[in-house]
Amino acid sequence: MQNTKIKSLSPIQWIDETSTVKIIDQRLLPYELKWIEISNTQEMACAITNMALRGAPLIGIAAAYGMVLATKENLDLNQADQILRSTRPTAVNLMWALDEIQSVINNFANNEKSFLMSELLKKAKSIHAEDYLSCKKMSEIAADYIKNKFGRKKFRIMTHCNAGALATGGYGTALGLIRELFSEDLVEMVYSNETRPRQQGSRLTAWELAYEGIPVTMLSDNMAAHCMKQGMIDFVIVGADRITANGDAANKIGTYQVAIVANFHNIPFYVIAPESTIDRTLASGDLIPIEERDSAELHTINDQLVTASAGVDFFNPGFDVTPNALIEAIFTEKGLYRTI
Amino acid sequence: MQNTKIKSLSPIQWIDETSTVKIIDQRLLPYELKWIEISNTQEMACAITNMALRGAPLIGIAAAYGMVLATKENLDLNQADQILRSTRPTAVNLMWALDEIQSVINNFANNEKSFLMSELLKKAKSIHAEDYLSCKKMSEIAADYIKNKFGRKKFRIMTHCNAGALATGGYGTALGLIRELFSEDLVEMVYSNETRPRQQGSRLTAWELAYEGIPVTMLSDNMAAHCMKQGMIDFVIVGADRITANGDAANKIGTYQVAIVANFHNIPFYVIAPESTIDRTLASGDLIPIEERDSAELHTINDQLVTASAGVDFFNPGFDVTPNALIEAIFTEKGLYRTI
Repeated sequence: MQNTKIKSLSPIQWIDETSTVKIIDQRLLPYELKWIEISNTQEMACAITNMALRGAPLIGIAAAYGMVLATKENLDLNQADQILRSTRPTAVNLMWALDEIQSVINNFANNEKSFLMSELLKKAKSIHAEDYLSCKKMSEIAADYIKNKFGRKKFRIMTHCNAGALATGGYGTALGLIRELFSEDLVEMVYSNETRPRQQGSRLTAWELAYEGIPVTMLSDNMAAHCMKQGMIDFVIVGADRITANGDAANKIGTYQVAIVANFHNIPFYVIAPESTIDRTLASGDLIPIEERDSAELHTINDQLVTASAGVDFFNPGFDVTPNALIEAIFTEKGLYRTI
Repeated sequence: MQNTKIKSLSPIQWIDETSTVKIIDQRLLPYELKWIEISNTQEMACAITNMALRGAPLIGIAAAYGMVLATKENLDLNQADQILRSTRPTAVNLMWALDEIQSVINNFANNEKSFLMSELLKKAKSIHAEDYLSCKKMSEIAADYIKNKFGRKKFRIMTHCNAGALATGGYGTALGLIRELFSEDLVEMVYSNETRPRQQGSRLTAWELAYEGIPVTMLSDNMAAHCMKQGMIDFVIVGADRITANGDAANKIGTYQVAIVANFHNIPFYVIAPESTIDRTLASGDLIPIEERDSAELHTINDQLVTASAGVDFFNPGFDVTPNALIEAIFTEKGLYRTI
């Protein structure tokens, strides 16, 4: 899979020779493109928690490989599952991928360890490959929708956070749509919100797009409404970490705000994510657990203090929920998600 | 004036002994509280442009003192006026203060230079003192309005950027109201948006409030809507750099976005500013010139690169305009501003 279809950067690779996983340490981007080797389950759990890798689909793939590492280590597989499952609470793809792995474990639990490991590796690689293909498929579906709606033109597109190759098996969801449009010369400019407090927009999305020569302009998060008022934006596309049965979508903090101001300016707001992001067990977005992260992310950038901290409190929710009423359409690899 | 009424920090002082001006270099806050000495007009113009001092009312005061320095230097006063007037285009208090100074020049142009200088100094000090008193007055008016509307309770207040003592002659506009309420024990929490790209919210507002023991929580700019949805905010108060005849208000970039999301959640959004901020020559906010600042502010914090920059474009408007329809009330030292 790694050799054939992926043109955009893939942020994760299984290494057959060493039975280890190579990942890009995304905390170092855009300064350094450094691959690190993950050789056991605990390292993978830390990489997810510390956001060396991030992005809902990628977290799912990483957790699947993490379970392969657990068989290599002879760990208690239930315990390994729990460790990985508790790394981050909001993205549901993590739970979905671990459930997929669990069904393989259930089927082959009585077989030889080496056989079980090879079956789990097959499954993990298939989750990885399927993610690439489903990103490609949903991007084509979204591009067709956009072209049908607006006609063929050069689009000015806003996105928030990084729903790119770096967040997935290698093609991206929101940036997958942008790649699709760019391949037909239909992108005038991508406006990438900075996405404080971890700057995934300016560190990752801007870097990923510039890496492929796609035109990108960085904005701070508070400029979105002003740009929309100036007539600079045709539509907004974002990824999602969990979509509930009614079509509410959890995504990186700030997404909800962008959705409100897009609606205020009558600018269509779209969500794009794999089917594995849809959590039909939750009726609405109010039920999604929102991760609260360390205050250091707010007061420190690259180990340097960037704010007052003595006597100051911090609130650092990692995600927010956009109600379905603000979303014009949700694209998946199966088409438009129709809410229940 | 410096000795009597100002309890909060005053960011600017005229030094009689040396005929120079002392200002806090606000670019170094919160790391260092450093005073720098400004001894000529060009230094003052640079301090305004480089934002060693900032805040619409403070810029006006600084420009008035800058003209006193021009008489000390024997500069062509028209030229000095032009230099100062062109430092920053959006805040109208700058033009207002220079007009006030110009009327003194017109009255005493034929007098001795030393007499003219002493008259200009009297005027500059009076602009400075008046600013303090008008901040206090408008804060009392706003506090009465708030108490009448909501009753006496502990308020959870959001603000954007720094409209504090650091932005004025020493009491603040938005933070003046907060000081007023805090003096009556009516502040539960102030939520200060970070205000990228220069972090005036987290560097200055959080520091200024913590300095006086007023409870403050820092948020990144993209968290405002999420906090409002969670029921954490009672009202929003911000300053302004220019208010047009119809009540549209230019303020730091991001203010417009906060106003939209506040309205979406039925949370009152208020503006507070001195009468000198009102530009009756402009019919509406569309006519306000919006300063576009250097892209370095977006990609570099404290001389450290914080984003991708190769192959990436940047858009850095310093201000935006909030239409009057989104503003529940505008407080000035004369009461509520009634639009024409």
